[in-house]
Amino acid sequence: MKVGFIGCGHIARTMAETVNNTKGFELYCVAARDVDRANAFKDEFGAKKAYGSYEELVADDNVELVYIATPHSHHRDHMMLCIEHKKNILCEKAFTVNEAEANEVLTAAKENGVFVAEAIWTRYMPARKLIDDIISSGKIGRVTTITANLGYQISNKERIIDPSLGGGVLLDIGIYPLNFALMARNNVNVKALTGICTKAETGVDLQDSMTLAFEDGSIATIFADAEVTSDRRGYIYGTKGYIEVENINNPEVIRVFDDSRKPFMNSEIIIKNDYNGYEYELIEAKKCIEEGKLESEMMSHKETLRVMRFMDAFRASWGIKLSNEI
Amino acid sequence: MKVGFIGCGHIARTMAETVNNTKGFELYCVAARDVDRANAFKDEFGAKKAYGSYEELVADDNVELVYIATPHSHHRDHMMLCIEHKKNILCEKAFTVNEAEANEVLTAAKENGVFVAEAIWTRYMPARKLIDDIISSGKIGRVTTITANLGYQISNKERIIDPSLGGGVLLDIGIYPLNFALMARNNVNVKALTGICTKAETGVDLQDSMTLAFEDGSIATIFADAEVTSDRRGYIYGTKGYIEVENINNPEVIRVFDDSRKPFMNSEIIIKNDYNGYEYELIEAKKCIEEGKLESEMMSHKETLRVMRFMDAFRASWGIKLSNEI
Repeated sequence: MKVGFIGCGHIARTMAETVNNTKGFELYCVAARDVDRANAFKDEFGAKKAYGSYEELVADDNVELVYIATPHSHHRDHMMLCIEHKKNILCEKAFTVNEAEANEVLTAAKENGVFVAEAIWTRYMPARKLIDDIISSGKIGRVTTITANLGYQISNKERIIDPSLGGGVLLDIGIYPLNFALMARNNVNVKALTGICTKAETGVDLQDSMTLAFEDGSIATIFADAEVTSDRRGYIYGTKGYIEVENINNPEVIRVFDDSRKPFMNSEIIIKNDYNGYEYELIEAKKCIEEGKLESEMMSHKETLRVMRFMDAFRASWGIKLSNEI
Repeated sequence: MKVGFIGCGHIARTMAETVNNTKGFELYCVAARDVDRANAFKDEFGAKKAYGSYEELVADDNVELVYIATPHSHHRDHMMLCIEHKKNILCEKAFTVNEAEANEVLTAAKENGVFVAEAIWTRYMPARKLIDDIISSGKIGRVTTITANLGYQISNKERIIDPSLGGGVLLDIGIYPLNFALMARNNVNVKALTGICTKAETGVDLQDSMTLAFEDGSIATIFADAEVTSDRRGYIYGTKGYIEVENINNPEVIRVFDDSRKPFMNSEIIIKNDYNGYEYELIEAKKCIEEGKLESEMMSHKETLRVMRFMDAFRASWGIKLSNEI
């Protein structure tokens, strides 16, 4: 499958290596507003072509899948451009800056028969199924409580601090503990949410504490932080025991404890593979496209909209509007 | 110091053993509404006297310190009785059911020259100073985020489920992560709080998620649960590293990590002592009384009021009123 890249920043570099190392994929072309950057990227990662505009890339008939790696403030426009040219899309998280944009994109994609998926890797990783299986086995009983956190010292980065790039910790980091909680409470509706954030001088959020209350009475208490390193652990507590996930952003170890805090027999699952973790979303996109699907069950359009809706609600409660929002 | 017990339930039994094993203390007498229960308690723990009414106990001139171990719905009345009789008080947490009651008691105690302290053991334990010292050493930098949780499967217990006993998870368990956060942010004002709870059919809260925002921008994200066992860990995250506390209710191990999640050299403090943990509050009460103090710096009246105020605010936001509240 020939992949075209829109954007050639940090995450695009990682994904270019991934494409090169994953069977069935070819790093076909890359586009950037600055053709020199695109050419340098092409040479470094061995792509076939480099374009100085996104329009040229989507006009290239050979491109079978577009990977969008621009700041999320630009995702909507770049996805709409792909859809106009009937190009299948794998778009980095956050999918867009708000639900309205996401809805616009997803509606247009459906109307145009274009596959589109949000590239949030934790939804596609094998660890997700392992966790789902432990929950559905009943081993930890009825789930009542979830906690998760993710913190990196990245408050000095432009994409975090600049409101015009859709900055803030929520869309960049908070999205992971939020998805962790929503995956663990799959198919359970959220009935209320509340949170508190601490803002930077530029007005973006640097620390978010977020609580989701689910219809079945379970509660998720999560936080994201752009100023400190956190332990990155996630917990799913049930009436018979609990699951501990080491690094919710790229699970390394999953442990299962009983209701007296003792590990269940053979409960430590160390996650090892030869992958860097980005392959799964690529492979899933290819599979869906080949099967003629317009969305992936691993991150359905409904779920993408739900995540955007909750992030909108948190931002609204904090009085945070991104510069390009109406 | 001759100690008189009001109440002879589970926690009183533990404290009776503690008094018997702590130098300088004598389990002098015990009072219960049922004199047979008081007598059985007296015999089992070797007290000198048993009373069938609290009035008899406070009228006993030999009693130097009253330990109150009744349900918190009764703390106010029992403390006021002690104050009328100029008896020094160590009262189990929660101090009262709300701030108004706490204020009434503390004002009366001051007017009558009576020592009174809230028996929340984590405030008096050596671990508290260890954590304070790590924070003030600057090792973990500027503190921005705190998390803590405490969960036990005790939703079937009368004191938790019964609103007339001041039930709910907040006053019984939630008070620990709340105190953990407030100790870690000592002298920093809270500027906002929000939370969500899940209620039992009796109307009391069984799971609480609580967030406190401090004036310096730091945030505490905590939860308490009466339905599941939790890992009981607390974290204090700073710009240079973080502290992990194993069991915030009775610290067992304190670990300090740098900002890349690696343990600092010699940073693991295993807390070992010959004490069960309840001795420290007894010893502190004795010391204060002997020094003529009316309150302890380890849990000042101001702090007791602050904790009650925040618990009132959370309960108000959840629409929870205890049966005996106006």
